[in-house]
Amino acid sequence: MVAEIVSIGDELLKGGKVNTNAPFIASALGEIGIPVSRIVACADDEDAIGEVFSESLSRADIVLVTGGLGPTRDDRTKKAAMRLLRRGLEESAEAYGKLSAWFSGRGRSLPENMRDQAMILEGSRLVPNSVGTAAGMIVPCGERFHNSHLVLMPGVPAEMQAMMRNTVIPFFASGSTTVIRHTPVKTVGIGETMLADLIEAVEDALPEGTTLAYLPHTAGVDLVVSTIGPTREIVEEDNRRVVEAVLSRAGRFVYATGEATLEETVGRMLAESRRSIAVAESCTGGLVASRLTDVPGSSVYFIQGVVSYANQSKERLLGVSPETIERHGAVSEAVAEEMARGCLVESGADVAVSTTGIAGPSGGTPEKPVGTICIGIAGKLPDGGIDSRAATFRMYGTRQQNKQRFSEAALREVWKYLQETGE
Amino acid sequence: MVAEIVSIGDELLKGGKVNTNAPFIASALGEIGIPVSRIVACADDEDAIGEVFSESLSRADIVLVTGGLGPTRDDRTKKAAMRLLRRGLEESAEAYGKLSAWFSGRGRSLPENMRDQAMILEGSRLVPNSVGTAAGMIVPCGERFHNSHLVLMPGVPAEMQAMMRNTVIPFFASGSTTVIRHTPVKTVGIGETMLADLIEAVEDALPEGTTLAYLPHTAGVDLVVSTIGPTREIVEEDNRRVVEAVLSRAGRFVYATGEATLEETVGRMLAESRRSIAVAESCTGGLVASRLTDVPGSSVYFIQGVVSYANQSKERLLGVSPETIERHGAVSEAVAEEMARGCLVESGADVAVSTTGIAGPSGGTPEKPVGTICIGIAGKLPDGGIDSRAATFRMYGTRQQNKQRFSEAALREVWKYLQETGE
Repeated sequence: MVAEIVSIGDELLKGGKVNTNAPFIASALGEIGIPVSRIVACADDEDAIGEVFSESLSRADIVLVTGGLGPTRDDRTKKAAMRLLRRGLEESAEAYGKLSAWFSGRGRSLPENMRDQAMILEGSRLVPNSVGTAAGMIVPCGERFHNSHLVLMPGVPAEMQAMMRNTVIPFFASGSTTVIRHTPVKTVGIGETMLADLIEAVEDALPEGTTLAYLPHTAGVDLVVSTIGPTREIVEEDNRRVVEAVLSRAGRFVYATGEATLEETVGRMLAESRRSIAVAESCTGGLVASRLTDVPGSSVYFIQGVVSYANQSKERLLGVSPETIERHGAVSEAVAEEMARGCLVESGADVAVSTTGIAGPSGGTPEKPVGTICIGIAGKLPDGGIDSRAATFRMYGTRQQNKQRFSEAALREVWKYLQETGE
Repeated sequence: MVAEIVSIGDELLKGGKVNTNAPFIASALGEIGIPVSRIVACADDEDAIGEVFSESLSRADIVLVTGGLGPTRDDRTKKAAMRLLRRGLEESAEAYGKLSAWFSGRGRSLPENMRDQAMILEGSRLVPNSVGTAAGMIVPCGERFHNSHLVLMPGVPAEMQAMMRNTVIPFFASGSTTVIRHTPVKTVGIGETMLADLIEAVEDALPEGTTLAYLPHTAGVDLVVSTIGPTREIVEEDNRRVVEAVLSRAGRFVYATGEATLEETVGRMLAESRRSIAVAESCTGGLVASRLTDVPGSSVYFIQGVVSYANQSKERLLGVSPETIERHGAVSEAVAEEMARGCLVESGADVAVSTTGIAGPSGGTPEKPVGTICIGIAGKLPDGGIDSRAATFRMYGTRQQNKQRFSEAALREVWKYLQETGE
């Protein structure tokens, strides 16, 4: 069994939009052992869509399509499928009910031009949309296309993702005969080349069917250990052994095996040790606080954040002394440490982290170039005193990349501190 | 003239990697008037690559390829092209010279297995690599493929981008006889269906060669007005007219025509009117401050932010009265307004914006369900007094989508306030 993915939308061909739907679908299919052989993006044009559908359905067993299901005129996916497969539309009672409820839940009646959103191809199976309005569908394409399946989903990522998880993956999982397991091993604070050196012996001795991929991103390197095989037992055993071998060599850089983000890992450690956190940010501009509060339930441990961009704010909100700023400069370990201590005292939190640096593009000096960041950490000691420290790092990127890397470094310093001081 | 893009690499089909090369190439071609009709991703497999090349070269005038040109064994692009076009390889003296210099510049001699990196297809034109080692090439494919061109480039973004800029775009720009213009029209505070209703008459009367696309995203809808035609004058005139027609009907929802983000638009308005801003956030957790400080130069107008997650923080850092919280609840217009006023007074800024709401997934009540947000705005009056107001909105999404939409709504309220109070 092999799949192809078709992404529909003029904006993809104009370069205005990066295709993130296709990788999501490919990953989800990979987990149930269905490989993807081709990804095609084409225009919102009925003829072009029909041509791509015809080609992909001739080659693949499943063709998964996103885009072109909305209520506006540039949405032509259903029309192209109707013409190619010579089918009409029928209203799905289930989809119509959900659609009416969706509008009445928002205090509105169903507009006439939205009714089409509940129509699916004759003989197809509804893929309910738990997030938005457009109905998805799984269309069996008959003998003309060697009984392959066409899956139509909207292009809005959240809607497509819910459809994949709730309906499409369970539907196709039963027909798959190979097992695939991917385990992300997420690292922070080490580059790709150094990490490769560290785990060279693991890579030299990978069992058959297991591969190791490096996914470097803005602020760290994720490894993915992938195993494919005939049974769940063999696949899980081989996969687990490789993950353990990686951990035995590079474990001190690994904050998660699985899908957890660094902020989720930090949040779990705070919750488990019943400690609270506060944040004082300059160059990260609120990003560290925003990432920490992205985690559901973070209100249990997140007390407050301060974005002290101006020096006066550092003094007024955090009690940093003007002399320290004068003597060392606003971007300095001394200021970072005072910010963290002031933040801890002012908020009453158990742990505080601070950032002060130069995100760029301007503001750099020869001694403190763009990309310089000082991070401070302060924590309550059992005797009631305060423990604090600060460190300087250097990043190389655009303003937004630097902010992202700075925030990653700040969360990493919190993670290290929580590890050292945890039970 | 029409182009197709082919992206080669197993990692694209496994979902581990997002394809950012194709949008870059599509944008660059768009600027010289060459539309892209299809984007295909396929595996590092000689047969699959050959099949895709054959299909794309039959349809398009230019086929631009990235990936599979490196020195390792899974790089099979050149082999597939050689077999399809029945050509051998020849060494490019220029590429060989650059390759040797590349290694000697790093204090190493040229390894034998790297020599292949300077080989290009017979009869092709070298596309020099100013960043890395693999030679690129433009291959004229002859009458069998209606004299179309195959362009081979490495998959490393920086290498491909330099090749596009320095060689590929100048090469094809001269042969292009059409002009394309895309104008983004960015809206906020209106959904796709309502926007479509509002500009229905514009869509009904689009001039030939002009299309209108809807790009809904988490927190708003972007329109793109695209015009293709024979001369710059006609294309710009048609495009401008449609953009103006959209503005005349939906202008009150449009914050930018062009590439500006909402935070950039707000920042420009603050800078132009020499006003400063401060932010008090609860449910957005620092995201509003982070977005405002994403803009280079924002330190001129951004004073400070406070993330007051706990009620105590709202009282201590912003002077919100415990009675107001007690009487109206933390998520209320009364508290939002007091937060904004307190933030304005505490920071000394000219404008302050506040958020308090329920991002979810838990914490909702029947009266204040998940997705409820109260936004407060406070501003200095010319007489020294303070003007303030608050409003409630409702969003429907996951925690992170809600945070994104909340922050967009907060920036939109600032934008509206700045419009009303600007000169």
